[in-house]
Amino acid sequence: MEHWVFRHEITYKDKPNVWLQLLNPVLIFGGVRMANEEVVLLSFWACTFAGKVRVALAEKGIEYKSMEQDMVTKGDLLLKMNPVHKKIPVLIHNGKPICESQIILQYIDEIWPHKSPLLPLDPHQRAVARFWADFIDTKICELGKKIWKTKGEEKEATKKEFMESLKLLEGELGDKPYFGGENLGYVDVSLLPFSCWFYAQEKVGDFSIETDCPKLIAWHTRCMEKDSVSRSLPDQQKIYRFVLDLRKLFGVEE
Amino acid sequence: MEHWVFRHEITYKDKPNVWLQLLNPVLIFGGVRMANEEVVLLSFWACTFAGKVRVALAEKGIEYKSMEQDMVTKGDLLLKMNPVHKKIPVLIHNGKPICESQIILQYIDEIWPHKSPLLPLDPHQRAVARFWADFIDTKICELGKKIWKTKGEEKEATKKEFMESLKLLEGELGDKPYFGGENLGYVDVSLLPFSCWFYAQEKVGDFSIETDCPKLIAWHTRCMEKDSVSRSLPDQQKIYRFVLDLRKLFGVEE
Repeated sequence: MEHWVFRHEITYKDKPNVWLQLLNPVLIFGGVRMANEEVVLLSFWACTFAGKVRVALAEKGIEYKSMEQDMVTKGDLLLKMNPVHKKIPVLIHNGKPICESQIILQYIDEIWPHKSPLLPLDPHQRAVARFWADFIDTKICELGKKIWKTKGEEKEATKKEFMESLKLLEGELGDKPYFGGENLGYVDVSLLPFSCWFYAQEKVGDFSIETDCPKLIAWHTRCMEKDSVSRSLPDQQKIYRFVLDLRKLFGVEE
Repeated sequence: MEHWVFRHEITYKDKPNVWLQLLNPVLIFGGVRMANEEVVLLSFWACTFAGKVRVALAEKGIEYKSMEQDMVTKGDLLLKMNPVHKKIPVLIHNGKPICESQIILQYIDEIWPHKSPLLPLDPHQRAVARFWADFIDTKICELGKKIWKTKGEEKEATKKEFMESLKLLEGELGDKPYFGGENLGYVDVSLLPFSCWFYAQEKVGDFSIETDCPKLIAWHTRCMEKDSVSRSLPDQQKIYRFVLDLRKLFGVEE
């Protein structure tokens, strides 16, 4: 048996059925789970949060049906599957919804641990990976948007803060090929959909990310050479055209 | 041996040293870790995010040194341990910092799984628990603050939205004694520091949470009867006095 998964937090005192669960091959060996699975992703091509889930599923080799959602008139299925936030991405696994991209990534990693583990094994390293994934979802996401949503002085200040944040990621990457080390990990999957917007941000903001963060740009290029990544994420030119449309829509043309 | 912990995501193909790790009792049995531990928490008594960590450590029976931080003039240790966000809580475990409350809770649960597991075993239930913990950190936190920060119509609209959010939690709790089922779990620990503010919010907002959410109020009372909870969280009268001071500070007296 090549692949192992051990669940943590098993206290048989509290959960008397744990031995039954341990004897169940579906629970023990992630690979078995792949038979008769129904995996649906409620997605939108340009959504960075949905992009993470697409990369993770592709890396794990999980087949899924992607259902593109209309972000203005939200469909009945989306409202039914995520009634609290009414947002994508939603992963529907055998009829059960899982919402919020970081939660979905961890679910995917726990359900299908047979291939390409996303989070490392060590608790402290796991905490560090979760920290940077959260940093990306908040800081990088917010500042990245603000670059194309603002103009003049506000845009210049945003560019400066954005670059400071990217330098922190450049430092975290260091000389490793991936944030996950030798392989794509949780932070890589979390950042890639955002780094696909770098080209558009540079064009709109008239600046170069590579000047201060050459390792980060080399990392992005390296990742995009992987089939699982490139077929899961949109082309940077398409994102640039989308950003120009968004700027018209938001009335931020200079 | 009464308590077991199995780590997940072990793929020996990728990690050839996994068998060594499995043979290491420190990695296998969480209880062993408690010897020669240095656990420090950078905290602030009224901070809801730090409150979660205090409850989790108390529930697990982990001894720690709490270091109260000045939220205005941030100390050197805080700046050193959380240079990115410069925020509490920070858990320093044997000299290594872990930041962000949800990440700290998961770290605590992974490092000390010998007692009071916070997250359930089943991946879907884990995703559901993470979803509500995130909902509390964003929605309940934001609206809860807004009640004492606003006045007039804005406050009335906030109270309405706050109650709608609490009703969702009331529905999630249902007839269970705890969100975690028969025992305190991840969602309980995440919500308790916020429910300690309910009394102050009701007084300042002149409304009753119990009218629409009787189960939630009964749950809060039930939890506060636990020694691990009551000694980790501030008294509601103290929070109320603190809120009145904050309102003066923010100039929102009516």
